[in-house]
Amino acid sequence: MIDLKNIKSPADLKGKSLSELEELAESLRTVLLRKLSVHGGHTGPNLGFLEATVALHYVFNSPVDKIVYDVSHQSYVHKMLTGRIDAFIDPTKYDTVTGYTNPGESEHDFFTIGHTSTAVSLAGGLAVARDMKGETANIIAVVGDGSLGGGEAFEGLDTGATLKSNFIIVVNDNDMSIAENHGSMYDNLRLLRETDGKAADNFFKTLGYDYLYVPYGNDLKSLIAAFERVKDTDRPVVVHLNTQKGKGFAPAEANREMFHYAAPFNLETGAMSGSDAEGYDDIFSNFMLARMQANKLVAVITAGTPGVLGFTPQKRHQAGSQFIDVGIAEQEAVALASGMAKGGCRPVFGVVSSFIQRAYDQLSQDVAINGNPVVLNIFYGGINGMTDVTHLGWFDIALISNIPGWVYLAPTCKEEYVSMLDWAIKQTSHPVAVRVPGIMASSKREFPADYSELNKSEVVTNGSDVAVIAAGTCLQVAMEAADTLRAQGKNITVVNPRYLSGLDVELLDSLKDNHQLVITMEDAVLDGGFGEKVARYYGDSDMKVKCCGVKKEFLDRYNVSEVMVASGLTADSIVALINS
Amino acid sequence: MIDLKNIKSPADLKGKSLSELEELAESLRTVLLRKLSVHGGHTGPNLGFLEATVALHYVFNSPVDKIVYDVSHQSYVHKMLTGRIDAFIDPTKYDTVTGYTNPGESEHDFFTIGHTSTAVSLAGGLAVARDMKGETANIIAVVGDGSLGGGEAFEGLDTGATLKSNFIIVVNDNDMSIAENHGSMYDNLRLLRETDGKAADNFFKTLGYDYLYVPYGNDLKSLIAAFERVKDTDRPVVVHLNTQKGKGFAPAEANREMFHYAAPFNLETGAMSGSDAEGYDDIFSNFMLARMQANKLVAVITAGTPGVLGFTPQKRHQAGSQFIDVGIAEQEAVALASGMAKGGCRPVFGVVSSFIQRAYDQLSQDVAINGNPVVLNIFYGGINGMTDVTHLGWFDIALISNIPGWVYLAPTCKEEYVSMLDWAIKQTSHPVAVRVPGIMASSKREFPADYSELNKSEVVTNGSDVAVIAAGTCLQVAMEAADTLRAQGKNITVVNPRYLSGLDVELLDSLKDNHQLVITMEDAVLDGGFGEKVARYYGDSDMKVKCCGVKKEFLDRYNVSEVMVASGLTADSIVALINS
Repeated sequence: MIDLKNIKSPADLKGKSLSELEELAESLRTVLLRKLSVHGGHTGPNLGFLEATVALHYVFNSPVDKIVYDVSHQSYVHKMLTGRIDAFIDPTKYDTVTGYTNPGESEHDFFTIGHTSTAVSLAGGLAVARDMKGETANIIAVVGDGSLGGGEAFEGLDTGATLKSNFIIVVNDNDMSIAENHGSMYDNLRLLRETDGKAADNFFKTLGYDYLYVPYGNDLKSLIAAFERVKDTDRPVVVHLNTQKGKGFAPAEANREMFHYAAPFNLETGAMSGSDAEGYDDIFSNFMLARMQANKLVAVITAGTPGVLGFTPQKRHQAGSQFIDVGIAEQEAVALASGMAKGGCRPVFGVVSSFIQRAYDQLSQDVAINGNPVVLNIFYGGINGMTDVTHLGWFDIALISNIPGWVYLAPTCKEEYVSMLDWAIKQTSHPVAVRVPGIMASSKREFPADYSELNKSEVVTNGSDVAVIAAGTCLQVAMEAADTLRAQGKNITVVNPRYLSGLDVELLDSLKDNHQLVITMEDAVLDGGFGEKVARYYGDSDMKVKCCGVKKEFLDRYNVSEVMVASGLTADSIVALINS
Repeated sequence: MIDLKNIKSPADLKGKSLSELEELAESLRTVLLRKLSVHGGHTGPNLGFLEATVALHYVFNSPVDKIVYDVSHQSYVHKMLTGRIDAFIDPTKYDTVTGYTNPGESEHDFFTIGHTSTAVSLAGGLAVARDMKGETANIIAVVGDGSLGGGEAFEGLDTGATLKSNFIIVVNDNDMSIAENHGSMYDNLRLLRETDGKAADNFFKTLGYDYLYVPYGNDLKSLIAAFERVKDTDRPVVVHLNTQKGKGFAPAEANREMFHYAAPFNLETGAMSGSDAEGYDDIFSNFMLARMQANKLVAVITAGTPGVLGFTPQKRHQAGSQFIDVGIAEQEAVALASGMAKGGCRPVFGVVSSFIQRAYDQLSQDVAINGNPVVLNIFYGGINGMTDVTHLGWFDIALISNIPGWVYLAPTCKEEYVSMLDWAIKQTSHPVAVRVPGIMASSKREFPADYSELNKSEVVTNGSDVAVIAAGTCLQVAMEAADTLRAQGKNITVVNPRYLSGLDVELLDSLKDNHQLVITMEDAVLDGGFGEKVARYYGDSDMKVKCCGVKKEFLDRYNVSEVMVASGLTADSIVALINS
């Protein structure tokens, strides 16, 4: 076992023999697995790209040569080799690095990346800049097979191949996306693997790339030879690596989907810790399975993240052809859904808040202008969503609500969530998005079966002087504040707006009678959000309005409670605001 | 010459002989050209796809068989054959049809389409729906070569080829986008044309499509034979047509870019009417040419619309490699620009307001999170932009301004426009978007060379009681209103906010001293826009706020003046509001 502490930079790899590099790789894997087993993280992708990363840094001269990782969830080993080994050796420093490339951490990282299919375009931009400056350097994009199905990757490949200079695309083909791949291009990748890269039909060659196939993508010797062959090339070239996702850890090799992103696990058995509590993924998948069974025209769509939707392999099997995975291609998911809805089906696209923004134009043009009754189920919206800067869940309200035609619903608890989702599927008058609550909550309130009277709010408690209009998950907080205030002798009004995409003007007008202040609460960015609509509505009246929500900024790996406080979304802060 | 009045539906084509169909095509061309010469419109695309449209409707059985046109700017002949011939024969009815497919007009139109690269996905959805319902019908997507470079089209092709059923993609390859094509896939299309479709490298085959090449894509006999061959196929198939853009009108065949979308023209000579007045396209292109000459690291990027940017073929030649056309691939344009900016270049992406929404995620993830100083130049923003429902220019403020990090500037006249664009390129601290004013205006006011003190407004006239904060083009209207009011003895304050992405809170606070009402004006949708930020800021103060702007809705081919009035964006309505 090599003492990895001595690996301060890629320079420390130079001059090593193959066997020394192999020993290094083994040590890296041991250390990496130890961290992952305790800390969790993207396990399969990093184990699978470990040797390739070593080979890249052995052959190329980072940061003069520039490596751009797609999604960059596979960049852990890159971090280990570029001055950040402590964050993988020392448990007290595990959280000193992010899970993605980060220019703030190292000159070897060029972009903060977290979404799919962007690396070829970004690296292409670096290549164009290099050429405009008359410099020379290798520009390398590392992109997984799963990422190649996204439109941005195709656009990047299409432009990249027109470069008359060095541009190296390393395709890390582990025959997997997050789950299994979907899309016809994967048949071509399979064909290339099965023919040792020699098949006449070659996707990359039709786009004009030189092409090099590496059948043993976890073999250091093969990798080094391949990278040395393309180093300093004066042409765009694809190096197609056949890699093993989860390489070197049997449970991850066997269960590639589960170990794509792993919770802490047992290093001996691979047994993964996890919660047995019911989540919204369970509620969604069980509800949809029942609906699909009852109506053969109902379908669930995912863009490469079936697990987020609660659709385990078993549930996918149950759903059969009514479950459609288009690969990580959100534009296709939305546009396909529009066509399906037009054709009489009831498609429900389950998607992460941060990823729906990849399909704004499709939400507007393909769906809303056409009025096709597509249903969106938005996961991880709000402060309780994902905390990486590239996966923030607080832009979806401004994104969806301001497109004419979309009805955006904010259920406050699981019962309301189910009733809204149920209505969204049954009706065919509107495109409807449902924002999954940020926290699990249950309520004995009664919920309507019909939400077709748009923008009609629910008055949860009736009071005077102050009304709090609290969207989605915020309602619980508003109720807590109301309880506290009641104990102090103040009865405020609490409203569940239900709809994020429009105002209940009748209610807003009636509040003027005996209220002086309206507080809005939403766990999303204030700019472009729900509260501002309320503020505008009351703008020329005597009603005072105070909007509580997230400041317009990018935060990385934030603390949920701190952001709740900073956003004024705690019961204490609402009470204080009212008592001020 | 056939009397086209008798063509009421595709049924009227059935049973006709080839020579009768050829005669029909000639008549259609004559009538179409006559309308186009008077009315203007998409000339080259419709002339080039004329025979193919006749053949499609002869062979297939619309609307049971469903034809979905990409962009649908080439659907004029389709409209002529599906009950809408009057709109092409009778000059008084020329405007009774839109320039795109429109389900409101005919059961033969399935979607309202206007953006590029969507048809394969939408048609794919119809195909999935057909299969889920257990029906049979031909589903046909018509897509131009220029549209194939867009990521959504690739995603659609990738999913479409996985269908185990009928799915027909007609590729209308006229070897042109709006201007010339850019992207390596066009080398493959050229290779296929040059080898009569027989080249070993075949983009469509690598994606799993059956493939049929039609060398004479304007020859009815060939087209009918090809469509009959694929009709009722049980597999996804690409029919690759080699067509002539502008077919049958010599000036349009010779000058394909100019006649892509033509203003009215002389039927004999092809001479096109046009304005000699300086436009923002001229200002932008001349300014950028000078900047590019002075600094070899400045670059202009277009996503397939060089003409919009004022970059005529001659100016593109002048700019050389500093002018980059990525094809109609806005995601690539933005991500590439981010990479270029990171690499030390100064990329300026000139783009139509309605098309920048195709790259929301790239603006957020690839640019803003990374803080790379990309410059956007937004054309056709506002009510004075394009009036088709698919090309509305009033969503860009909500889209761009609410992304953290983006500085969105709204110049009010050409001098301010140039000073802001100049600063945007010189600075490297922020991604900056500049919204081209909606109308040509000139001002003798002085403009700073530096806009780095973010959100600092310009107080144009100092008054009391009422302040109008008027963004961009609206400033002129506010000044007119102020003049009228001055004559009535009222001195109002008029503010040019300059920035759409943030507030000048110091100024807003100072207005509280001697103002009771703030009116905001923006020629964009109110929801998520600039005015709402002002309303929120003043929400808990005594200041009254009234926001003027466009209602959140989709309008088609609207009357500019009417929308100005409805939005409260006229001098009269501002005066009336203040006097009320």
